Amino acid sequence: MIIIKGGVTAAKGFLANGVRCGIKQSGRKDLALLYSEVPCAAAASFTTNRFEASPVKVSRLHIKNKTHQAVIVNSGNANCANGKDGDNKAAEMAASAGHALGLARHEVLVASTGIIGVPLPIGKIGKNVAGLVKGLSKKGAGAFAETIMTTDTVPKEFAVKVKLGSFVVTIGGACKGVGMIYPAMKTEKHATMLAFLATDAGISKRMLEEALDEAIADSFNMISVDGDMSTNDACFILANGLAGNEKITKKGRHYLEFVLALKFLSLNLARMLAADGEGATKLLEIKVVGAHSKENARGVARKISTSNLLKCAIYGEDPNWGRVAAACGSAGINFNTDKTDIYLGEMKALSNGAIAKGYSKGKARKFFKPKTVQITVDLKSGKYSATAWTCDFSKEYVAINSEYST
Amino acid sequence: MIIIKGGVTAAKGFLANGVRCGIKQSGRKDLALLYSEVPCAAAASFTTNRFEASPVKVSRLHIKNKTHQAVIVNSGNANCANGKDGDNKAAEMAASAGHALGLARHEVLVASTGIIGVPLPIGKIGKNVAGLVKGLSKKGAGAFAETIMTTDTVPKEFAVKVKLGSFVVTIGGACKGVGMIYPAMKTEKHATMLAFLATDAGISKRMLEEALDEAIADSFNMISVDGDMSTNDACFILANGLAGNEKITKKGRHYLEFVLALKFLSLNLARMLAADGEGATKLLEIKVVGAHSKENARGVARKISTSNLLKCAIYGEDPNWGRVAAACGSAGINFNTDKTDIYLGEMKALSNGAIAKGYSKGKARKFFKPKTVQITVDLKSGKYSATAWTCDFSKEYVAINSEYST
Repeated sequence: MIIIKGGVTAAKGFLANGVRCGIKQSGRKDLALLYSEVPCAAAASFTTNRFEASPVKVSRLHIKNKTHQAVIVNSGNANCANGKDGDNKAAEMAASAGHALGLARHEVLVASTGIIGVPLPIGKIGKNVAGLVKGLSKKGAGAFAETIMTTDTVPKEFAVKVKLGSFVVTIGGACKGVGMIYPAMKTEKHATMLAFLATDAGISKRMLEEALDEAIADSFNMISVDGDMSTNDACFILANGLAGNEKITKKGRHYLEFVLALKFLSLNLARMLAADGEGATKLLEIKVVGAHSKENARGVARKISTSNLLKCAIYGEDPNWGRVAAACGSAGINFNTDKTDIYLGEMKALSNGAIAKGYSKGKARKFFKPKTVQITVDLKSGKYSATAWTCDFSKEYVAINSEYST
Repeated sequence: MIIIKGGVTAAKGFLANGVRCGIKQSGRKDLALLYSEVPCAAAASFTTNRFEASPVKVSRLHIKNKTHQAVIVNSGNANCANGKDGDNKAAEMAASAGHALGLARHEVLVASTGIIGVPLPIGKIGKNVAGLVKGLSKKGAGAFAETIMTTDTVPKEFAVKVKLGSFVVTIGGACKGVGMIYPAMKTEKHATMLAFLATDAGISKRMLEEALDEAIADSFNMISVDGDMSTNDACFILANGLAGNEKITKKGRHYLEFVLALKFLSLNLARMLAADGEGATKLLEIKVVGAHSKENARGVARKISTSNLLKCAIYGEDPNWGRVAAACGSAGINFNTDKTDIYLGEMKALSNGAIAKGYSKGKARKFFKPKTVQITVDLKSGKYSATAWTCDFSKEYVAINSEYST
């Protein structure tokens, strides 16, 4: 597997574009389209928030179709809590893209992001779909990644190539979302913010669904910015088969290789989201090892990642590891605190439930200085591990979010 | 029932004191004692954090004793994550108070609050216990409330009188804790921060335990400052029977009247904690009505109370009610969003899942101006309700918590 330049159009047969349609008051680009020149197998995963946005409802319905060829997205308006009017407009948004592309509405998926509870200006979208389609291109990936941004400070793209037998398969992706970020719930299908993945791999819809679930579990599902789950979280993957590989229809070697590449791509995109979290100055990587089960490892890592107190300490470069212990203990998971170790970077702070010999706050502080801070918790009760990502909590975060809708 | 002046010594036979012993670097008072002149029935409820502090372990053991007469508390050090050394010191702290008071160590309960992972300077405590005991008085309630403070900006006391038949019973209390505040877990016994309740009611230990559980469920268990559960949460109640009422031994009329007064007291103390939350400029009261069960009502209210995004919006006086909807929908509880209403103060913002007719952001803003902001969610799926309290999220919160241990 190698990392290559590019984003959502890195794989064969994909085109994209992003334009201004006037939803965002800032005048920035706010309407984007991803398109495959041939029909794709598609899979998607959505928020489990009960207040599901209208585009999520529509995409949940459309994803049941056998094939898909496009995803239309707007930023600046979540089209959520808009009642039937919102549902109708989300359906209309897919239909108008379908009409312009010569596709049935069910072949088009739809996503929205922005403020909740403001009617979607569908007229502005309708007027701009033709231009959006006309401008589709390979290099439109950049415009796509830029258009889907809301409070993001940088566009987020990633792409990899992987060999499946003698065929080279490409996977590209773009994502957005640095606030209201705490995707995923335990057992149901779940998803995160907006992520769009596109590959030229040949793979059945069922295998693609499995691959997406596997990739999300250790990437998008393990990030948090503010602990607030969104109403609009969605992750899409389109696979058009143009790479020419023998179609993946079972969990053989090619499936595993494909999933490995997809995981790597998703992980890199997810880390970009956490690092660009609203007001963030640092990325925090929390590794939990020695857990009794994978679920426990994930649960403890995620719980720690949502500690406001720890996130403030990271901002202040203050090695207050007691907050890691407190968060760890509140995850609702059974483990022996008298055996637990905590490391700040390379320095052991807690050893078997008590302060580690040689621990010094002065020395520990240096591990809180880098842009990426690493914390490891060893529960010593099993062989499972998981990593969660978050960012620090800054005064800037409060500034951003006390003025969002005004 | 009437509200009276006073705190933890308001009821007959209780004395208290608070002194400096040198744990707090600021030189503020940090060692406190509550004492009853006669043996009491006692009940207590503790954190469910797996990283349980040493004083919690010791008090859990001691509470099994039939009677109690004192609670000793230090602030400035949590005595948590200190291993066996911490456990021994917590036991020693209770024993030294017992020794000075002529009580067995099991008759003394113990609590600590402050930084995690720093050895408890037990020598400083030992040297000051005699003076602490010597200074016990009725008016020591004020010193007690002041001494237990950490990042609290004001001491927190409350007291009520209630008539049980022809006898007047008094209940007084003091509490602390405005950071690392998210007490309680679903089904187990649970508690919050440090709260000390003292009554001259005659009541059996078993009934006192039930009364405490009932009172906590709708008060301390319904507040959040930062969503971080502490390792040291504890709520104690002592009942010494000096009021002379017929001892409450079953759930009759007197029990109900006593619980009502205890709930009222606890509620007022809990609100004080939320209102004084670290960096807080406003108190936020979230009422959920029309829930399918009491547990659902509490769950939704609590989930909303931990939304960082909503808390920032309250700080900015920004009526961004979409954040209420998003938080509500992420509580993991099933309800019909198409029937849900949301009120900001008296203004309906969401009606049956869509923007309410006549809603105006300009007008809504006025309900975000007062010191206490009220938000109501009507799930229209049942008859149960619950209220949760939190505070806004300010830049000052980040400032306080990025520099706590340094």
